Amino acid sequence: MTATTPLPISIDDVHAAAARLDGVAHRTPLLRSRTLDARIGAPVALKAENLQRAGAFKFRGACNAVAALRPDGVCSVSSGNHAQALALAAREHGARATILMPADAPASKRAATEGYGAEVIEFDRYADDRDALARELAAERGFTLVHPYDDPLVMAGQGTVGLELVGELDDLDAVVVPVGGGGLIAGVATAVRALHPQARVVGVEPEAGDDVARSLRAGERVSVDVPQTIADGQQVTTPGEHTWPVIRALVDDVVTVADAEIVDAMRLLFERVKVVAEPSGATALAALMAGRVALRGGSVGVVISGGNVDAARFAALTAT
Amino acid sequence: MTATTPLPISIDDVHAAAARLDGVAHRTPLLRSRTLDARIGAPVALKAENLQRAGAFKFRGACNAVAALRPDGVCSVSSGNHAQALALAAREHGARATILMPADAPASKRAATEGYGAEVIEFDRYADDRDALARELAAERGFTLVHPYDDPLVMAGQGTVGLELVGELDDLDAVVVPVGGGGLIAGVATAVRALHPQARVVGVEPEAGDDVARSLRAGERVSVDVPQTIADGQQVTTPGEHTWPVIRALVDDVVTVADAEIVDAMRLLFERVKVVAEPSGATALAALMAGRVALRGGSVGVVISGGNVDAARFAALTAT
Repeated sequence: MTATTPLPISIDDVHAAAARLDGVAHRTPLLRSRTLDARIGAPVALKAENLQRAGAFKFRGACNAVAALRPDGVCSVSSGNHAQALALAAREHGARATILMPADAPASKRAATEGYGAEVIEFDRYADDRDALARELAAERGFTLVHPYDDPLVMAGQGTVGLELVGELDDLDAVVVPVGGGGLIAGVATAVRALHPQARVVGVEPEAGDDVARSLRAGERVSVDVPQTIADGQQVTTPGEHTWPVIRALVDDVVTVADAEIVDAMRLLFERVKVVAEPSGATALAALMAGRVALRGGSVGVVISGGNVDAARFAALTAT
Repeated sequence: MTATTPLPISIDDVHAAAARLDGVAHRTPLLRSRTLDARIGAPVALKAENLQRAGAFKFRGACNAVAALRPDGVCSVSSGNHAQALALAAREHGARATILMPADAPASKRAATEGYGAEVIEFDRYADDRDALARELAAERGFTLVHPYDDPLVMAGQGTVGLELVGELDDLDAVVVPVGGGGLIAGVATAVRALHPQARVVGVEPEAGDDVARSLRAGERVSVDVPQTIADGQQVTTPGEHTWPVIRALVDDVVTVADAEIVDAMRLLFERVKVVAEPSGATALAALMAGRVALRGGSVGVVISGGNVDAARFAALTAT
């Protein structure tokens, strides 16, 4: 990347997304726990995107894309949260939706996607080329493909999470954000860099899926094997074409967490904050709790990115 | 009761409590789920007291009492949530706290109470006279006894839940409230009757602990055996001396729910609303979901009164 290459999104795109989402997406609350503050040694503000419509930040990006493009039909490939989000965004705008979902996606996510009126088609996460399948489906049906993360409209929509955080926390030291394909952190970093440049933006990946951390060290996009992790929203093998230049330019650091650390964070959110986070949704807090995020004083904004986990799976995960 | 007997609390007491709690207790959010609205056939606003400090509405009453009385030390007897609430309220006001807790109280509640700096003394829920024990302790130490519900300051503090609900819902049809000793519903009914008299106030008890429902039918306070129910915050045998006249005068109806219905509501809150409710905290929603609350059109306010349940107990309850 050179200084003359513009990034795929700017703060203007994030502001435009915020206008489209006004009254449609929830402005999610910032939750706090004094127990957590004492443990971390800093005021921690949890941006509760698990309380977002369709249970995750993904609704922001999907809704921004559908609202901007106004297609007759949309399709995508998703391990779950983007599926639900796009299905709901399509229904809100009177569009049809067909979603390719991995055969091993959590049953609750598939049921919710169908519940929002979308058609679901299964694929094999470990064998098929998900992006090729999605392109074929879009061409066949004349639907607009809305990628779960590698799309400037989706990235800008997710960036409204950062816009809200920056608007509510004057003394922001760092923003900690889960990283899957990178759409959320690309959008959040765009907002934070523009409006609160002194705050650091730190991404968090599961240990087994550290493609973005490796790419930052290598200075170029690298691929990893399909990650085996409980964090099913972050089983991504390489940074996106559009998300990568933004991450490289604007993100300070990407750290990793082990599955057991993710479970610790899920349990703390349950028992002290009284909210449900799915594994991917708890990775940013897990990194903070594990001491992987350097603190310089001031508030730490932590994105709890999703809560789509059924009670039985939650019980199985936290029983270990 | 005759028309000339004033009730133990008035709306003025609830307003005074609100002033004392301002900036100390959380103004908890109203959470919504379109899935739930569709299922109930009315807009449902969930007053999330599980997100209150110390994890339950109890903090409002305890804090109002401590703020009004400014004692050197407080004591009480509680199956859990009042214990944590009073311990935290005392700490906030620089007072000492000693709590009598049943020996079979959930471990997480005892740990949290001690975590707020209180001393905990055990008693046998099924053998000892809890009120006599508490009076002895207060006399021995010169501490102020803050009853978990049968105290006008506590009732007025709990009533701020109703004040907030009424302030945010113009079209309120009914407010549905869990009933243990009756402090919450007495306070809420006081606020609702004064400020939105056309809304009904409906209480909900576990089937095994229907002392208030029976008392309303009998026209006088009756006692039941110590209830065996998962709703450990509602194991109360008779209405309070102070709560009873308010309930009798201002509450429209009290209905009951089975333990299995409570679990259904806990699961829905977990999976669709992404929040944690303890069994007692979910009883009001359970009654609404089970069709026990008549609807006339307009919004239904439902108090989710507490979230103090650890992950292991939640898993065991929802596994059935």
